[in-house]
Amino acid sequence: MSEPASSPSLASPQPLAEPGSVGIVQPRTFTFAEGPHALVLESGRTLGPVTLVYETYGELNATRSNAVMVFHATSGSHHAAGRHHADDQRPGWWDAMIGPGKAFDTDRYFVVCSNFIGGCHGSTGPGSIDPTSGRPYGLNFPVITIGDMVLAQRALLDHLQVPSLLCAAGGSMGGMQALEWAIRFPDLVHSCIVLASTATISAQGIAFHAIGRNAITSDPGWQEGDYYGHEGPRQGLAIARMVGHLTYLSDQSLGSRFGRRLQDRENFEYDFSHEFAVESYLDYKGTQFAETFDANSYLYITKAMDYYDLTTHPEGLVGALARTRAKFLLASFTSDWLYPSEQGKQIVSALMQLDRDVSYVEIDSPHGHDSFLIETERQTQIVRSFLANVR
Amino acid sequence: MSEPASSPSLASPQPLAEPGSVGIVQPRTFTFAEGPHALVLESGRTLGPVTLVYETYGELNATRSNAVMVFHATSGSHHAAGRHHADDQRPGWWDAMIGPGKAFDTDRYFVVCSNFIGGCHGSTGPGSIDPTSGRPYGLNFPVITIGDMVLAQRALLDHLQVPSLLCAAGGSMGGMQALEWAIRFPDLVHSCIVLASTATISAQGIAFHAIGRNAITSDPGWQEGDYYGHEGPRQGLAIARMVGHLTYLSDQSLGSRFGRRLQDRENFEYDFSHEFAVESYLDYKGTQFAETFDANSYLYITKAMDYYDLTTHPEGLVGALARTRAKFLLASFTSDWLYPSEQGKQIVSALMQLDRDVSYVEIDSPHGHDSFLIETERQTQIVRSFLANVR
Repeated sequence: MSEPASSPSLASPQPLAEPGSVGIVQPRTFTFAEGPHALVLESGRTLGPVTLVYETYGELNATRSNAVMVFHATSGSHHAAGRHHADDQRPGWWDAMIGPGKAFDTDRYFVVCSNFIGGCHGSTGPGSIDPTSGRPYGLNFPVITIGDMVLAQRALLDHLQVPSLLCAAGGSMGGMQALEWAIRFPDLVHSCIVLASTATISAQGIAFHAIGRNAITSDPGWQEGDYYGHEGPRQGLAIARMVGHLTYLSDQSLGSRFGRRLQDRENFEYDFSHEFAVESYLDYKGTQFAETFDANSYLYITKAMDYYDLTTHPEGLVGALARTRAKFLLASFTSDWLYPSEQGKQIVSALMQLDRDVSYVEIDSPHGHDSFLIETERQTQIVRSFLANVR
Repeated sequence: MSEPASSPSLASPQPLAEPGSVGIVQPRTFTFAEGPHALVLESGRTLGPVTLVYETYGELNATRSNAVMVFHATSGSHHAAGRHHADDQRPGWWDAMIGPGKAFDTDRYFVVCSNFIGGCHGSTGPGSIDPTSGRPYGLNFPVITIGDMVLAQRALLDHLQVPSLLCAAGGSMGGMQALEWAIRFPDLVHSCIVLASTATISAQGIAFHAIGRNAITSDPGWQEGDYYGHEGPRQGLAIARMVGHLTYLSDQSLGSRFGRRLQDRENFEYDFSHEFAVESYLDYKGTQFAETFDANSYLYITKAMDYYDLTTHPEGLVGALARTRAKFLLASFTSDWLYPSEQGKQIVSALMQLDRDVSYVEIDSPHGHDSFLIETERQTQIVRSFLANVR
């Protein structure tokens, strides 16, 4: 691994007149794995140089023992908390959980969140320039795994001169990264929070991802992934996102939010416009996502999730988790049908067989898989007391 | 309604050397609603002439009192039982339920199944020639409802000179048609079998349909529905079908059938081929469907389902069902997450409030929504004893 390209600036963000907010934050970048130090991936291929874009909240204490690394899921980014400027309409994706006095209390913890490799928010991904061609990687970008993402995040931790993590935490795909940290770097991870996640994606989960990938690659705008500078497979990506989004919600939450309500009309108009409010909502969600997300990243990210499987260890999930030394907190949500409670309980059961210190809570929520982004109040109580008892 | 265009031939099919089979069957057609007799649809628009393609199995008895009308769902057709020729590899979609000695025992009952209007297997639909233009309707085909389908089927019954139905029976969207028959023509329907169905589609159900419609209409081959004579939106229809198909299965059935098994390889190859068996299966299912189904029909059929809602009656579902006089059998399946048991029980509860003669069974099955096509052995016991006690 190469030397840090630049010294990290750990200055705390500027305050905002918003109680509990970390204020205005600035993303930073870190570039490494250059030349002969390229990252060796699980596939055997190499990737370098690698840039990670990241944000930090709170301050590292004198003993460098209060770092929490938070991992985002498919549609998140390094921007987990605060705002980018005073007029920023949307705070970071986990702003309700990260800030002074919040679950990840920035008065006590130094919180780090980076965009994973393969992403499209500033870290090296398929839309980045391939140094061998001088053009965007496209499909020449190597297929990456959750393990590869974690390897890159480890380099960031070294760069920040943080010797260990008080906690590795994430929901959904972020939970997979947290788990992977606890397995790969057992001496570095003191605690691990895994929300709405799983040790392995089911056939149904793979199938939903496969539909999304098919929608993208069958869009004529995809051009075998070589669409940069052009519009790209916007329609296909929008369809992929609609499918994904639907798996994040529950029948119940859609029912109470939209039900069979019509959009801007009193009666059926017997046409193929988006007559139902839920149709209009989904279309909006898909189109909006397609404007800001890179379709190739969607392919790589879903693929990384599909590959994730802790049960292939010769001694199964117990074998895979045997190396961990962290204290664990797992939570699942009653209406999450993408990664149902049984999948969370499977991890808990394996950890209990290993006599690990593990807390588990099944939260009764109607919000489906997205509950980990919504049930922040209940999560706050649980995370706060869990973190207070780490070490 | 116009006079029957041709006299129905009720000759029994030729026998096949296949026990329990109705043998080799010939589809027939019936054309009506010509000129001033055009069908008046729920939308207020008219449709005519209307052709229905249908098959019959068994023989009408002397008192014309043994007719059973069976209704197909999205991907079925009028071809419910038997084979079209001696080398036909695939029998009708409910062959396991219809035949001598089977649930719908053709030694006792005269079974009729027609392709609904809006379909693409021979009945009038968006791919039919619009008499006003001499070209395929495309999007000029009127939006139709479940009620409109039933209205056309009623004309077929008259044409067959059958005064009433011993039973109206169907699963999924076929169950909606059966319910609609019992509501619209209470004096004609002596019993009604509704399997894996619902009185109203939930927001989630509409959303899955909307994704399918979006996939079709965003395929450049769709051409605003005016693609006949060209390839049409094959990719979009394949995506729509993949989404639909996934909602018909369960996580459990996909898990036991495919799990995380790889397709034609031992290890990950780190590429974007269909590495997992479940991906390959879905792709096959989608592509195969797109070769034989008309994309516009998919739009119209899913729309008809989305519109279906018996709960909008001023007195709710009870009000909507108050007109019925039939004896009812309802079944739902434990792993059906598209039309979960609660939705079947909602109908049962309303019928019980009306003091109707109603039987209900929740069948424990891992096969999801498609259970009504798969759990034929258990359904046979239930349907047989139910029918034996009608009248």
